[in-house]
Amino acid sequence: MPDVAVIGASMTNFGTREKWIRELLAEAGKDCLDDAGVTPGEVDHLYVSNMASGEFEGQTGIQNALAHDLSVVPAYAQRVGQTSSSGAAGIYAAWQSIASGASEMTLLVGGEKMTHRTTGESSDIIASITHPVEYKHGVTLPSFAGLAARLYLDEYDAPRESLAEVAVKNHHNGVKNPDAQFKKKIDVETALESPLVADPLRLYDYCPVTDGSAALLFCPVDQAREYADEFAVVSGVGGATDTHVVHERPDPTSMSAVVESGRQAYEMAGVEPEDIDVAELHDMVTILELLQMEAFGFSEEGAAWKDVKAGRTELDGELPINPSGGLKARGHPLGGTGVAQAYELYTQLVGDAGDRQVDADIGLACNIGGFGNCVNTTIMEASQ
Amino acid sequence: MPDVAVIGASMTNFGTREKWIRELLAEAGKDCLDDAGVTPGEVDHLYVSNMASGEFEGQTGIQNALAHDLSVVPAYAQRVGQTSSSGAAGIYAAWQSIASGASEMTLLVGGEKMTHRTTGESSDIIASITHPVEYKHGVTLPSFAGLAARLYLDEYDAPRESLAEVAVKNHHNGVKNPDAQFKKKIDVETALESPLVADPLRLYDYCPVTDGSAALLFCPVDQAREYADEFAVVSGVGGATDTHVVHERPDPTSMSAVVESGRQAYEMAGVEPEDIDVAELHDMVTILELLQMEAFGFSEEGAAWKDVKAGRTELDGELPINPSGGLKARGHPLGGTGVAQAYELYTQLVGDAGDRQVDADIGLACNIGGFGNCVNTTIMEASQ
Repeated sequence: MPDVAVIGASMTNFGTREKWIRELLAEAGKDCLDDAGVTPGEVDHLYVSNMASGEFEGQTGIQNALAHDLSVVPAYAQRVGQTSSSGAAGIYAAWQSIASGASEMTLLVGGEKMTHRTTGESSDIIASITHPVEYKHGVTLPSFAGLAARLYLDEYDAPRESLAEVAVKNHHNGVKNPDAQFKKKIDVETALESPLVADPLRLYDYCPVTDGSAALLFCPVDQAREYADEFAVVSGVGGATDTHVVHERPDPTSMSAVVESGRQAYEMAGVEPEDIDVAELHDMVTILELLQMEAFGFSEEGAAWKDVKAGRTELDGELPINPSGGLKARGHPLGGTGVAQAYELYTQLVGDAGDRQVDADIGLACNIGGFGNCVNTTIMEASQ
Repeated sequence: MPDVAVIGASMTNFGTREKWIRELLAEAGKDCLDDAGVTPGEVDHLYVSNMASGEFEGQTGIQNALAHDLSVVPAYAQRVGQTSSSGAAGIYAAWQSIASGASEMTLLVGGEKMTHRTTGESSDIIASITHPVEYKHGVTLPSFAGLAARLYLDEYDAPRESLAEVAVKNHHNGVKNPDAQFKKKIDVETALESPLVADPLRLYDYCPVTDGSAALLFCPVDQAREYADEFAVVSGVGGATDTHVVHERPDPTSMSAVVESGRQAYEMAGVEPEDIDVAELHDMVTILELLQMEAFGFSEEGAAWKDVKAGRTELDGELPINPSGGLKARGHPLGGTGVAQAYELYTQLVGDAGDRQVDADIGLACNIGGFGNCVNTTIMEASQ
């Protein structure tokens, strides 16, 4: 079974973009091929991670449209769907395509175009992933997050500003990411005074609505040096589900699919939590970053907020988390996020992260669909 | 790299069903696990092939919902999209999951719920896969088929009834398939007198709108005997794209993505056209069955219609094609069709096809998205 390398990566500017989904995906895909110096004709498989282009703009068949736009025809092309974790599911699909021998050059492009819709329309599209019984009772993803956050603060005697501190850190990092949606520092007071969304969570606890795309190019490790002096190796992948009905879970602050997908990825990579040098976590809402830190074993149970407060997860801390700015500041174009997280790991591992560069040989990314309903973990390492 | 076995298969009744997509998928998935005697807890990966549940009924996150409904949580769950070839793309994904070692037990469920929508609504959803320039000029999938059919008849001096004879054969077979949507024989005159759709094609040249689902269960060949005395082996898989804009193709009667995906599958399986004992082809419209027969090398160029007329593709012919009834009579629930085609091959290969049983050790299935935009070919063989 060949080991799998990432030999190129790209992301578009995230934010409000005057391009449709096809154009955003094509922009990232073309940049990625150029980054690796690979011609379209060399691509065997093309995967497109996207949650809802049909619902957002009436565009289906996106994989064939992109194969056309990138001139990779007759390459195999397929769409990968897993709601907001479609991006990392695409990494898993791309990894399988190389590891199975089906492809020797796989391009993955993920993205979403959202900002042309009203917040209400976007919310309805996103809410269609949750269980209808919960949705009818008003328990949407943002309100699940509020319930979990309240429980966490109560259970672990964490002050309310613990959550705000996650947002402050990620906004701080976003300033150093030229492609981030928000390049604006905020302070704890601003976050705490922002409009209430789902008590105790406020506007600045949540990621924005975003247009954007990112791409990665994969090949067998033993062919990677033909294309790149420095590259990354996908050393661990894992994916798992949790209950579709969130209220069936015994403890809403314990993310079992994060734990399970992490266990798989750690085992495949042969590493442990203390080996991870940098992480990109799915901070769709601040509380999720804390829960993932604990689920991955980066922090003791109930102590992630203390690690954030102590600065351990800042750019110059022991374990920088979300150096990209995370979903909070980089933005969250649903199907694009998992790919953008891996773009950040790749960029850090090959030493191209500019002002936000950290010292890292091994990185971990976690991409979440629903409220932990589907979770993918990816571990990447710098080539030797 | 482990060889990949199919150890169980199922399909629901196809037709107008009083169930939503979640229920249809769960019905097929549960039947498939029962067929193989595998418990939900043994499933490592779950793939869901579906084109447009979001557009048809506002249901996204279908992979997580199905993981819940089948009690396979915490199995990995992912949706596979490739418009009307999503089903066979799911086979390719499932094959990769086993061949890469990522999974040792993969359940694939494909399906679509369509009949609750008007024909106009369904047509709009399906048309969103084609190029907008073509759609705006009224050149939809049915009209492409009309143009290709006229060219074929002219070029090869084929009489108009050549097309009707494909429909007659597939309806004849559908009578023997208890799960088919149409269990009704038709004659050539009925087909030729049905309402005109896109000259020269008439209503009976086209497949119906269908609700239905099918499922397959995969594991490594060296573990298959633990579960089944007789099983099938996926010996060849291949997938390819053609131009997104159909009018860019040099010859609309030459399906290059069928040729390319077939070349890949033949090469992997180490077989040639004359080794194929039974085939399930994508007769979304009658002309496509003829074009695929030629693209796969079953017939000489321009001679497929003569082979149909001579009865070579009937149940008792040299190469039975669409013993299931095909899309024409079994029905065409978009994301379910590719899985249902492989269900038919499996059923034939293990000798469970009842009144429509043919003598077959090697079978081939072809599933098409768009007008040959995305194509997957699967070759399956009976276990020794």
